[in-house]
This record gives sequence, structure tokens and C-alpha cells, in this order.
Amino acid sequence: LAGPIWSFGPEDQGLMKLDYKAQFQMNLRDTGSGSDGTGNTSEFNFRRNRLALMGAYGSNFSLYVQTEFNEDNNITPMNVSDGNNSDFRILDAVMRFRQSPSLNVWVGKFKYNLTRENLESCEEPLTLDRSAMLRAPLASSGTRDKGVAVWGNLADNMFQYRFDVMNGRNDAESAPNSNFRYSARAHVSLLDPEAGYGYKGTYLGERRVLTIGAAYQMEDEVAYADVAGSSDPVDYRAWTVDLFFEYPVEDVGTFTVSAAYVDYDLDDAYQGANPDPATIGLNGEKNGGYIKAGYMLPNLPLQFFARSENWSFASLNGVIGQEVDWNSVGVNYYLRGQDLKLTLEYSKVDFDQEGTFGGVTTENFSTLTAQLQLMF
Amino acid sequence: LAGPIWSFGPEDQGLMKLDYKAQFQMNLRDTGSGSDGTGNTSEFNFRRNRLALMGAYGSNFSLYVQTEFNEDNNITPMNVSDGNNSDFRILDAVMRFRQSPSLNVWVGKFKYNLTRENLESCEEPLTLDRSAMLRAPLASSGTRDKGVAVWGNLADNMFQYRFDVMNGRNDAESAPNSNFRYSARAHVSLLDPEAGYGYKGTYLGERRVLTIGAAYQMEDEVAYADVAGSSDPVDYRAWTVDLFFEYPVEDVGTFTVSAAYVDYDLDDAYQGANPDPATIGLNGEKNGGYIKAGYMLPNLPLQFFARSENWSFASLNGVIGQEVDWNSVGVNYYLRGQDLKLTLEYSKVDFDQEGTFGGVTTENFSTLTAQLQLMF
Amino acid sequence: LAGPIWSFGPEDQGLMKLDYKAQFQMNLRDTGSGSDGTGNTSEFNFRRNRLALMGAYGSNFSLYVQTEFNEDNNITPMNVSDGNNSDFRILDAVMRFRQSPSLNVWVGKFKYNLTRENLESCEEPLTLDRSAMLRAPLASSGTRDKGVAVWGNLADNMFQYRFDVMNGRNDAESAPNSNFRYSARAHVSLLDPEAGYGYKGTYLGERRVLTIGAAYQMEDEVAYADVAGSSDPVDYRAWTVDLFFEYPVEDVGTFTVSAAYVDYDLDDAYQGANPDPATIGLNGEKNGGYIKAGYMLPNLPLQFFARSENWSFASLNGVIGQEVDWNSVGVNYYLRGQDLKLTLEYSKVDFDQEGTFGGVTTENFSTLTAQLQLMF
Repeated sequence: LAGPIWSFGPEDQGLMKLDYKAQFQMNLRDTGSGSDGTGNTSEFNFRRNRLALMGAYGSNFSLYVQTEFNEDNNITPMNVSDGNNSDFRILDAVMRFRQSPSLNVWVGKFKYNLTRENLESCEEPLTLDRSAMLRAPLASSGTRDKGVAVWGNLADNMFQYRFDVMNGRNDAESAPNSNFRYSARAHVSLLDPEAGYGYKGTYLGERRVLTIGAAYQMEDEVAYADVAGSSDPVDYRAWTVDLFFEYPVEDVGTFTVSAAYVDYDLDDAYQGANPDPATIGLNGEKNGGYIKAGYMLPNLPLQFFARSENWSFASLNGVIGQEVDWNSVGVNYYLRGQDLKLTLEYSKVDFDQEGTFGGVTTENFSTLTAQLQLMF
Repeated sequence: LAGPIWSFGPEDQGLMKLDYKAQFQMNLRDTGSGSDGTGNTSEFNFRRNRLALMGAYGSNFSLYVQTEFNEDNNITPMNVSDGNNSDFRILDAVMRFRQSPSLNVWVGKFKYNLTRENLESCEEPLTLDRSAMLRAPLASSGTRDKGVAVWGNLADNMFQYRFDVMNGRNDAESAPNSNFRYSARAHVSLLDPEAGYGYKGTYLGERRVLTIGAAYQMEDEVAYADVAGSSDPVDYRAWTVDLFFEYPVEDVGTFTVSAAYVDYDLDDAYQGANPDPATIGLNGEKNGGYIKAGYMLPNLPLQFFARSENWSFASLNGVIGQEVDWNSVGVNYYLRGQDLKLTLEYSKVDFDQEGTFGGVTTENFSTLTAQLQLMF
Repeated sequence: LAGPIWSFGPEDQGLMKLDYKAQFQMNLRDTGSGSDGTGNTSEFNFRRNRLALMGAYGSNFSLYVQTEFNEDNNITPMNVSDGNNSDFRILDAVMRFRQSPSLNVWVGKFKYNLTRENLESCEEPLTLDRSAMLRAPLASSGTRDKGVAVWGNLADNMFQYRFDVMNGRNDAESAPNSNFRYSARAHVSLLDPEAGYGYKGTYLGERRVLTIGAAYQMEDEVAYADVAGSSDPVDYRAWTVDLFFEYPVEDVGTFTVSAAYVDYDLDDAYQGANPDPATIGLNGEKNGGYIKAGYMLPNLPLQFFARSENWSFASLNGVIGQEVDWNSVGVNYYLRGQDLKLTLEYSKVDFDQEGTFGGVTTENFSTLTAQLQLMF
């Protein structure tokens, strides 16, 4: 269940691989449907539906290109709609040059360097998925961006550094200024190393890992606090710290604990005379974090997990200073490792302030998801 | 002309294949252009333009992923427009698990189980194409849907059953209720078996087939007969019967006859105070059927065909109870079987009531199509 | 750095190849941003981002299918915007039948036969890119179209002819008449032949080429000079002449000179009572040309280039008879031929009439582009 690898060129220096990756879900939510929008909603859909092309030439060059397709998604993390969308795109397209393990240069479209969870492989989280509230504000494509990154591992892979310069907000007309966005991230791995660009949410008991990381991101004059007056430009600053621990104990099982905190700051644009809508809401100014924990049986590829998140939003659906709790429990069953996996998760979202504010209704909801994952 | 198959993994259990499939057409229609919309219209375009990835691992798992691209289609089955469309999407993405020939489970996006003709391979119809009026109402993606199917063959492949549960109408906000859609289909093959999920419109004289099938489909509370009042929800029910017969006679040629009837019921939503537009029109409440016939020469890969369809629409372009006849004749020339095929078809569409109703003009029209099909 | 080629079928008659091709750019422009639209603008983005599938069967059939993806392009040749675009499509899909070197028939979607520069390989220009002002008016997809071409080489490949019939303007409702577009092109190569369908902007010193070409294109009743009255239909006519010369001199280097002139005529539709917007502007009635020159070092894969263009537009952004000069200088560094190339270009665009006309501002601007090209 892991496709063919083709080699070519003199001394078989060239490699190519074509993969398909799917996460097919059945979702049941206790709200969102019917004439008053409060009926139960049920849906089959793909959370991810990807074709990936990987290439390499020698040991110093590789390539990763990946498409994504979303279609008619009724049930989304925070909303239910008629789902009249159809979006086929190239999600990743990155040329990777390696000078040495301590110096890599990546060019193209790929994940920016801020939170650990966003950098965890989409197909190898511990829980059903990464946080729905984790995305950086005003990032071109949400979880990815376009630009250049320089990164590497030092001290026997114990220490990793990353720098990138990317588009950030790529709205030349709407932004006060067309600036690039800069990120810096570092981690230290005290047990087994995590030396790649992508992290994992679990190593299925095959590694002993204790990694502590931190990152900082900035972009100047990213939006107006007063759009109508084209005035009061605000700067964007974010920082995060994160910890990942996984430890297999013989005959007992594998324990995983992971936690992070992140602060996204936009100079309190939400208090402005007429703030840019992009500075508020789910991907606007906010801070919060998660803790997740897992336990995998020693002799059966079955893993229990739980996660708890809390976020404070500058302004969400008409509520200033809204607080949101997102808790979930679930189980992964690895039929063939991550290549064929069944996941079941129950999650509950609680808002500190429920009700209808400015015509928008905010109500707690819960979701039950069954997911079949394939990587071929 | 049928691409490479790559094997991989221990004992070459894994297989992968990449295909390109095109149907390129020149279309001439006797209406649709110019300042009054009645001039002749001519167009080159792709009817289908697909990349397909197939995979298998062992004998119990396989995968089928297929993209489709439509662009600037001026001449469509029922209309002529400026064709300002561009739609690239993943049409099929299905994970296929096989317990035994009598028990298969398919998961993902694929064809739902109702009419035989919709289940016939898009590249192997008898006539130029399947019926333009056959699609089920309110199906997410027209000919495909997302969900799970269970199916298999019994009694030496003489009998086949299929059940599926799928999204059906996937419009959580607009539908009275977010229900799944259920289908059941069965067929009996009295001569050679048709044991796959996909049927064919012709076996080019390589099989003797006599198959009789029937199917039923249902989804509760699928639309409002009174949208303005959010009231009078209607249920969807459909049933079909079909027959397929093909018989090669030595030195004489191959004869093909196929017929079907289908009834799509929406509780007469069109009589409601303010019916959901999706309940009327081409893909609304209707019933009808087709008969098609073919004759293929014994010593030359040349096949003549004809088809006749009649449909009754609850309401079509402002006409209650419109009747439509669609008749066509044509010829297939198989340069390399279905891999490289030339088709020429002349078709004529007759409406029982012609004229302008509620501002929309309904007029008979005819179309001449030359098509080059490639599967590589 | 040029992917695997798979063979299949009896006697390995079948071939298949899968490629990825990227042009990733950092663009800096001296205008376009901020509240008054005059601030500097900077952006990372892909100019081209393509997956290509090539196939062949025997020596008489081949296939070329290529996708393109554009996304959030802020800096475009003539404008700066918020770039809220996402366009994934099949750019080329052509079935190529070869009767003999002197008779080829191509069917599908591919480049139409008019200017040499549009027919030059997108990844092998001499300068950063082809002219932004070269596109034919009212062509379905800009640089490509759908239809059939017949072409071949005669007299030991010294002479080449091409004819095509294609959609041209594929707007059945808006055009006065649904006519096809016809092209004819010929060239004579006095030194080494250029016998393919695609030209190159440079042969990197591997050929001695002197080619002179000319072409003509026409489509009747393509647009109204008076849209409001649906009257005064105009015909489209275009012609071009072009010259390409490249000569490597041992120990001195390779010299390249190329020039072309093209005239796009739409019966002076811009003088009509209410001209179709598609007859004016960047892709409307115009004439102009370019001259480009290159010098490549003898022992280092470094190539200097310059280009100069002048165009006269019937009407551009509210200015009748606008004249535009586009001059640029730059350098290509071929790390692995065209497979891995770095390009740096500085360009300046000068308008004969600057100012604000009819609410639209026309101002000179300049752009600095660094590009990394990969073909894998």
C-alpha cells in the first residue's frame, strides 16, 4: 500500500513517485439543517482528496507537488451550509535543495514555519485532525504560503532552526503596504531527533521523542483598523511555544502528550473605527492553545486519544472577547499503519457567550465523525 | 494504446496505472447563435477530458481516481450559450474492498445505483453518449454521489445485488431535512454474466448477454413544494427497469438491443405554491425511457446504431407536462477497439409544445456530432 | 533531471512520461500598492506551475496533456490587484497523428498557428517570457485553441507549412455568427531545420538557425461594433512576419537575434457606436512587434539578453491610439540546461500618453523579476 518508486537517469540518480491520499468521512452534527437551522445534519465527504508527485535527483534535490480537491462541503469545522463549493488546486509545489543536513533551501509553495501542529503531516496527526482555529491570520492559502525557507539541523540533529520569507497577506490593493512576512522557528529534541521539515502527531511507538519548540512571525502594515478611511495600519506579530512527548513502554503501550500555545496579534485592530474584516473572526486576532494525549495498545494497532483546546477571539460572530472550548475524544485503528486507518472522533464545541449577536447566532454544537484514511 | 501497468511491493502485489481518456467533438447545431439566437452554431470541444489513476494491492483492494475537465462549452445537450465555464474536478475517487465476489464494499465518490445507462462505462456506450435526460434529481454531482455501496454476484454471477447509502441532495440549508439517499438494484444475466460494477453499452461481439435489471431509490424530505413558506416538504422516490441484449452471429454480425424505463417522483412538487426550482426542469420530476439498437459488421469494426427516447417532464421551461422525443442515428468505427474510435451521430429533439412560455423559448433542434475517442 | 520514461506493449511500442514544470518568481514592481495604488509591490508566485503527461504508441501516434495552475496573482504584466484568482485547468490536450514527416494531423486543444513567439516553448524563451501583448484577440484560451491542425515539413525540412481550423471566438450568444477561425503559417529554415511544431527562443548554441516565417489568420463576423444595437458585425484578420537567427561562434559565444511584426485587425470596431469591449484593450485591435537579442558565453552557461517591443493599440484604458514601449534586459544562468535555470530580468513599460483618462490611470512602470525554472 505504498505505490511504486521509479528510478531513472545515470546510476539511477533520479526517483519519482505518484501517490493518492484520501480521508473520507461520515459526519453527523447536532445542528445546522432544516428551516430553522437547528436540525441534525449528516454528510459523506472527503476531508482530504489528494494526488502527490514526488521526485528526487541525487541526494541534493527533491520535489514535492500535491493537489487538493474540496467539493460541496456542508459540514465544516464551525459552520453548516449548502456547500456549493468546488475547489481543485495545487496545494504544495516545492523545490528542495540540500547543501548539507544543516543547510536546506526550499523554494515554492509549502507550509510556513510557525506552529508545530500546522507543520505536522496532514495524514499523521494524533487526533482526527489539527485544530480548526490554529491558522495564522491573513495567510495566502491558510496553511501554506509562497516563498523561500532556509533550515537545517545542528548538534547531531538535536537542534533545528528554520527561517522563511513569504507573501503573508498577498493583497496588494487592500493591504496598507505590500510587505513580505518573516518567520523564525527552532526546536530542541532531547531524545530521538525530529530532523525533517514535517513533524508527526504520533510515531506509533517507533520513537522516543521529547521536543520543545518556539517560533515567531511578523509582517508590517498588514491591514487597516479603519478601512473606510484607509488609515490606522496595523502590524501582525505572532509567537508560539510547543511541546511534544511520545514514549513507548514495553508491554504497556505508547503514551503521547502534546501541547502548544500561540498568540496572534494585530495591534487590536478590532477596536478600530472600521476594522478590516480579515482582522477579526476565526482567522483574526486571537490566542489559545491545545493539549492532546494518546495511548496506543502494545499488541493491537489501536490508539485512544483526547484533545482539549481553548481560544480567546478578539471578535467572533459579533461577540467581543469570545472564548471557545473544543474538546474531543476518539480512537485510531491502524489497519496498515497510516496507509489504511480508521478513526472515530466525538467533539464538542462550547462558546462562553451563546445567543444571537448582531443577527448571527452562536450556539454550542457537537460532531461525530467516522473517517477512513488511505495513502496509496 | 493502453498505458503501462506498474507493479510494486512484495510479490508484486501492488499495481498502478495512469490513463488519459478524451472524447473530442465537432458539433454542429441548427440553432442557438447570432442576435436572435436562431443561427447555426458550430464548436470544437471535449465531451470528456480525463486523467485516471488506478491502483490495486493484492486481490482484495483497489482504487480508482479520475479527474474531469470541462471548459467553454457552448453547445450542451439542451442549450447553446457563451460557454463561459471552466470546471476541473475529481469525478471519481473510490476505495474498493473485496471480501469475496459476492461481497464488495466501495467507499468514496462514484456512480450511484439506479439506471443501467448511467452505470454504463462513459467510454463504452452503444450510441454517442448516454441520455441527457437520465440524471436523477437533486443528486450532488449528477451522475456520481458520495457514500458507501455494498454489492456482489451470486449464483455463478447470474444474479447481482447492489445497495448504497449516499448524500443525495447535499444542501443542508435548503433541504427540509439532511437525509441520506438509499438505492437498491439487482439484475439477472441469463447468458454470459455482467459481473462488474460498471456495465457496457456494447461488448463489440465478444459476449452473449441478456440482462434484466431493476432498481429503486429514495430520499425523504428532499425539497419544499413551498420554498417561500419553508413548508410542504416532498419525498423523492424513483424506480427503473432495464433490459440489455447483445448477440454475435457468425458471419452475420453482432446485434444489440437495449431498453429502459425510469420514473422520478417528487410528490408533485411542481403543483406546490412555490416549488423548489430543483424539483422541476431537466433534472426534476419526470418519467421516460429509451430504446437503442445496434448492428456491427462481422469483418469490419463498423457499428451502426439508433436510439429513441421519450420523456414526460412535470414542468420544463415553463411548460407543464412537456413531452420530449429524442431520436438519433449514427455509426462507430473502432480503429483500435474502444481505445481509438470515431463516432458520427445525427440527433433530433422534438418538443410536444413549441413556442415561448413565460419568456423562455422552446424549439425543436437537431445536432450533428463527429467524435474522436482516445483511451491511452 | 528529466523524469522516467515508461515503455509498454508489444515490442515496447508504447511510451509514457510524466513531467512537472515550474517557473517560480519573485517580482518587485515600482507601483500598484497601498491606499493610492502607487506604492512598491512585491510578490512570490508561480508564473507557470504545470504537470504534463506525454504518451506515444509506435512512431505515428503521440499524446500531450498538460495542466496549469494560477493562484492569487497580484502582479500581472500590466496590472497589480488583490489577486483573488484560482485557476486549475487542462492547458493542452492534443492527439498527434503522423502520416509522414510531411503530413501531421493534430486534434484537440493546443497552440494556434500565428506568431512564432506564441509557438515558442514556454520554458525555452530567450528572454524571461514571451510578449504580454502578443495574444490574438478573442481567442478562446489566449494562447491555445481547440480544433484541428494539418502541418508538415517539405524539402529536407527546409520548408514548413501549417493550417488549422479552430473555434476562435467561442461565444455563441455574443458573437454575430458562430464561425470557426482559420490560420495558415509557413516558414523557411536556411541553415539547420526547425522541424517541430514548437519553436524555441534559443538553442543554447547547439544549432545554427536562420528561419523566416509568416502567417495569416481570419474569422468572419467575430464581434459587433455596435453591441447595443446588435449591428455592425466586424471581421477579424491578422498577419505576421518573423525572423529568428542563432549562431554559435567557437570560443566567442552564441549570438541570437529575433524579430517579428504582427497586425491584428478588427475592422476598426473601436470607432463603432458601442464597440464590443473585447475588440479594444490589451487583446483587441493592435499592431506591433519585438526585437530580441542574446549573447551566451562560450564556456559558461550564462546568457545575456535584451528585448524591445513597440505596440499601437486601437484603444487602451480610455486612450485612443495608445503607443506602448516595453524594454527589458536580463540574464539566464543555466544550472542544468533548461531543466534548472535562473533568470533575472529588469523591464520598463512606457506609455506615449500618461495620465487619467475616463477614470483609469495610465502610468509608466518597471519590474524586477528573479525566476527559478525547474523541469522534472
